Amino acid sequence: MAQTLVLYVDIDYSSPYALSAYAALEAKGLSYTLEALDLRARQNTTPQFGRVSLTSRVPTLVDDEFSLSESSAIAEYLEDVYGAPQYPRVLPAQPRPRARARQIQAWLRSDLAALRAERPTTVIYANKNPQPLSASARAAADKLLAAAESLIDERGGPLFGEWCVADVDLAVMLARLSANGDTVPVQILKYVETQFQHPAVQSWWARAKQAMA
Amino acid sequence: MAQTLVLYVDIDYSSPYALSAYAALEAKGLSYTLEALDLRARQNTTPQFGRVSLTSRVPTLVDDEFSLSESSAIAEYLEDVYGAPQYPRVLPAQPRPRARARQIQAWLRSDLAALRAERPTTVIYANKNPQPLSASARAAADKLLAAAESLIDERGGPLFGEWCVADVDLAVMLARLSANGDTVPVQILKYVETQFQHPAVQSWWARAKQAMA
Ligand SMILES: [Ca+2]
Ligand SMILES: [Ca+2]
Ligand SMILES: [Ca+2]
Ligand SMILES: [Ca+2]
Repeated sequence: MAQTLVLYVDIDYSSPYALSAYAALEAKGLSYTLEALDLRARQNTTPQFGRVSLTSRVPTLVDDEFSLSESSAIAEYLEDVYGAPQYPRVLPAQPRPRARARQIQAWLRSDLAALRAERPTTVIYANKNPQPLSASARAAADKLLAAAESLIDERGGPLFGEWCVADVDLAVMLARLSANGDTVPVQILKYVETQFQHPAVQSWWARAKQAMA
Repeated sequence: MAQTLVLYVDIDYSSPYALSAYAALEAKGLSYTLEALDLRARQNTTPQFGRVSLTSRVPTLVDDEFSLSESSAIAEYLEDVYGAPQYPRVLPAQPRPRARARQIQAWLRSDLAALRAERPTTVIYANKNPQPLSASARAAADKLLAAAESLIDERGGPLFGEWCVADVDLAVMLARLSANGDTVPVQILKYVETQFQHPAVQSWWARAKQAMA
């Protein structure tokens, strides 16, 4: 009954967490319905969506009578219920790389706030921000770049040999800098370019651009 | 070689995320060393700790030559590597309750910022904050209480039948209100009291009080 899957996202397609859940679901090759909510019109706080989501957040996945918010929890759930080998993996198979992927996902969701504020995802597919980074955003950018350089190889391939959903999360965070024209090492540029080739990332930005038009 | 496990936490024992990782490690019954870093003296930014942690954050778990930050990733790693039935579970066994536990963990780490700022964990074991909540912290508190009430039963037992690490995370977030004297439903009080009986939570607050003395 894969037809019962619904993914709720934001109507602007600007949430990197909605993109992350979308990429995980696309990677699984499951059939599903995409529902876009207008968060500025508070469509996530209606009683109808309140019955769906415990926390009124997007992304939210509905699988039959079960609904689940938080993008990292959604990827884990898909991995548990629609697992390998029948479905492609969205997290590494081995415990240590899987742990590192989870660390990256959790870190990018709970740190680097100044960078996220000064370089929203709209700089990736729409207007750039010409303002230099503040000192705290600069510190966040330096921390991000140092961690990324220690994780990324020269070819820009996936972090753990095979693609995983943390590649989308890390590439989007790095693109807040690279797509905006902020200076980043060439190795980082290569990684972002390579990871942005993923069909789910491409189709998501196409939706985002269309939503702005 | 369980003796090679090291958990790095903050010297104030005030980080709810350090407590979460500590509770997971204690629940596993593994032998380990606890290392407390003085974050105000920037002991997490030394080259020595930089080699240990990719992101200079606590908690960080070191298991032999592998080190891992982010409390939720640490709990998952312990579950993968020191799994049931040899070791007690720290996450629910079944996919849907496990997914809900992960949702709660991710949500509490990425939302409710105003509540976390106005009710730091020090209100739990040290000075209360007599200031009323601001409008945004009040909205966060109401959202937290509504979600908690829909998850919690009348006896204050664990969320998913058996204890899991999300019980620690949720109880600590709720205790920012209940321990401070902010009004909460009796069902919430009961849950916090019951979950705070966990030996890891008790021993952590004892360390926190000692650190303040
Ligand atoms: Ca069903
Ligand atoms: Ca999310
Ligand atoms: Ca070893
Ligand atoms: Ca953490």
